[in-house]
Amino acid sequence: MRDLLPLEKARREQVLEQIRQVYRGRGFQEIETPALEDLARLTAGQGGDNEKLVFKVLKRGEELDRALADGVELADLGLRFDLTVPLTRYFASNHAKLPRVLKAIQIGPVWRAERPQKGRYRQFLQCDIDILGDDSELAELELITASLAALETIGITDATIRVNDRRVLSQTLKSLGIDNQEQAMIAIDKLDKIEVSGVRAEIEEAYNSKVADAVANWLSDSRKLELPKELAWVSQLANPGKVRFDPTLVRGMGYYTGAIFEIEHPGSSSSIGGGGRYDNMVGQWSGNQTPAVGISLGIERILDLLPEDSSEDKSLVLLIDSDYTAALEVQAELIKEGWKVRIERAAKNTKAQLTELADQGFASFAHFKPGEKLDIRNLG
Amino acid sequence: MRDLLPLEKARREQVLEQIRQVYRGRGFQEIETPALEDLARLTAGQGGDNEKLVFKVLKRGEELDRALADGVELADLGLRFDLTVPLTRYFASNHAKLPRVLKAIQIGPVWRAERPQKGRYRQFLQCDIDILGDDSELAELELITASLAALETIGITDATIRVNDRRVLSQTLKSLGIDNQEQAMIAIDKLDKIEVSGVRAEIEEAYNSKVADAVANWLSDSRKLELPKELAWVSQLANPGKVRFDPTLVRGMGYYTGAIFEIEHPGSSSSIGGGGRYDNMVGQWSGNQTPAVGISLGIERILDLLPEDSSEDKSLVLLIDSDYTAALEVQAELIKEGWKVRIERAAKNTKAQLTELADQGFASFAHFKPGEKLDIRNLG
Repeated sequence: MRDLLPLEKARREQVLEQIRQVYRGRGFQEIETPALEDLARLTAGQGGDNEKLVFKVLKRGEELDRALADGVELADLGLRFDLTVPLTRYFASNHAKLPRVLKAIQIGPVWRAERPQKGRYRQFLQCDIDILGDDSELAELELITASLAALETIGITDATIRVNDRRVLSQTLKSLGIDNQEQAMIAIDKLDKIEVSGVRAEIEEAYNSKVADAVANWLSDSRKLELPKELAWVSQLANPGKVRFDPTLVRGMGYYTGAIFEIEHPGSSSSIGGGGRYDNMVGQWSGNQTPAVGISLGIERILDLLPEDSSEDKSLVLLIDSDYTAALEVQAELIKEGWKVRIERAAKNTKAQLTELADQGFASFAHFKPGEKLDIRNLG
Repeated sequence: MRDLLPLEKARREQVLEQIRQVYRGRGFQEIETPALEDLARLTAGQGGDNEKLVFKVLKRGEELDRALADGVELADLGLRFDLTVPLTRYFASNHAKLPRVLKAIQIGPVWRAERPQKGRYRQFLQCDIDILGDDSELAELELITASLAALETIGITDATIRVNDRRVLSQTLKSLGIDNQEQAMIAIDKLDKIEVSGVRAEIEEAYNSKVADAVANWLSDSRKLELPKELAWVSQLANPGKVRFDPTLVRGMGYYTGAIFEIEHPGSSSSIGGGGRYDNMVGQWSGNQTPAVGISLGIERILDLLPEDSSEDKSLVLLIDSDYTAALEVQAELIKEGWKVRIERAAKNTKAQLTELADQGFASFAHFKPGEKLDIRNLG
């Protein structure tokens, strides 16, 4: 977990606001769910490995005493590990008050109790759009179009999206002789890192050498495969050149039922976003089967691709001595004129003080003396 | 804890963005701290009763096993119960990278494990500004000026602020014969609810009838008291009429050391914000004593005072049949023209569909037919 310094936070909020405006412009509506969900829901088998990484919240009062005495589960709540499980619970709880097709924006932190390591945080931000209640490929088309538009708006123009379909992948593995597919999917998911030979070895260990050879052959030839009918919608995109069929794309989460996506960028070694269709998840909570599909942007990685923010043109440090009332009045006037004005009591070493504020993104300064005209100068 | 529906969330984000812009216009900088803090820090005695309401996070793996075996504390982290304790920890951790005077904006959720009751949530939003590193009354003046400006910008023009000073209150109680003041403060804090007679009774029980009479007399005459020298800065405000000296104001938190504030509004039975000076808290973490003062706005109560949001003028539902590609193109064109455009597959009962979308704040609609001119009509 980490603190955000003022410039980091400003940049992040600016980028999020731009993304939010693109999504809102397409009629997506922002919603919010609480950070805590029932632990039972977070560990119901939908979250794959993430379920093991839930921060669990201790029961309280008598309930905790009872749990300790009886030796049962000590926690009743957990911090969400993604925004998808809470969204499906939200849709099941609130569907009567929601439009039949919900096009949701969610921007919020999620938590995973991973071992601390460089570039990975135990609290990080997700920015998701999802369409619930539409079983047509219009949903996939809208999500991909909106995500690419959002990335373009913040200055990321060379992102591409790999797509596959879980049903196609599953049929392929079946045709290669694999019925119990979990181990095979885990191995193929590592293709980028361990290459065909590595996948072959893992499959041989989990199944047998005949199956391993078949998978290896298929992987080697996979780039030549044509778009299957399940993914025919890709050709309906305005910019199909941004989207590439990858028959070997797996994605980790267990809940996907159809199309899956992963967003790539030449400047990032890992994906900068991803998602897919998960038609069975709302039904698990409500009994009402509801089609659903979503894309999540990895904001931390996306921020790494963007240039550092520069200072704001019309921002001013107003150095003052002791006449606070007059200074507050001048500040109010300057704000009306469109300035961003920070009042600072002049330090003994004003040079160091101004350098420090230039580093914080302030562009100019003036030393306020009651009765004298303001002399606004550039900072740094 | 609660889910936010699309219109609730839109209204909240709009109000927060307006407040944020006012604060940023005055050179405050937004920062962010993680939701989880070390449990030891959250229960170090600074948070008053809130410390009892911390949601505690279970230790994980071997550490949990060890804690269970040894019968020691099972939790190592907790969800923050306010934004002030984390802010002081943040300043102590990051001061080398921060301006000497930090003017911070914090907008984020906090958590308290209160018994569920109407209008109280266990996760709720706080919106704070704080000035750290300035021991002059300029800090108080800026915070009050900025808070009133923020409230005015969102349409709340008749808020007033009660102020007091903890040092003055403490001297008064001492002069009335009370050295151990905690019980007396708790009683006086309830003055609004239990009136002078109720406070008198509690003080008599905790101390004696002589002290109780003295306190009751003082309370009855308190409205006549003049502004003490510790609060002389109030007269330097541009709008001192918005601020009223209340010698009986206490505020619950133990950490206040000087000025204290409470924001009132005729439309709300409880305060809609509050704060004060807490000069000893950063020093408790870092050893470097740092003056600090802050004001927090109670966003949930403030939202209750505002009128419901109306629909956005330039928002459009584009009903379509099956030509997705052409519809996405038209959507892109309309967005360029400044429209907010939601694509919807036309339902069999389009009337019900459109009513539902009017309820979601969409102002107009058009049924898209490839090759035909769009006929945009008002909704509802």
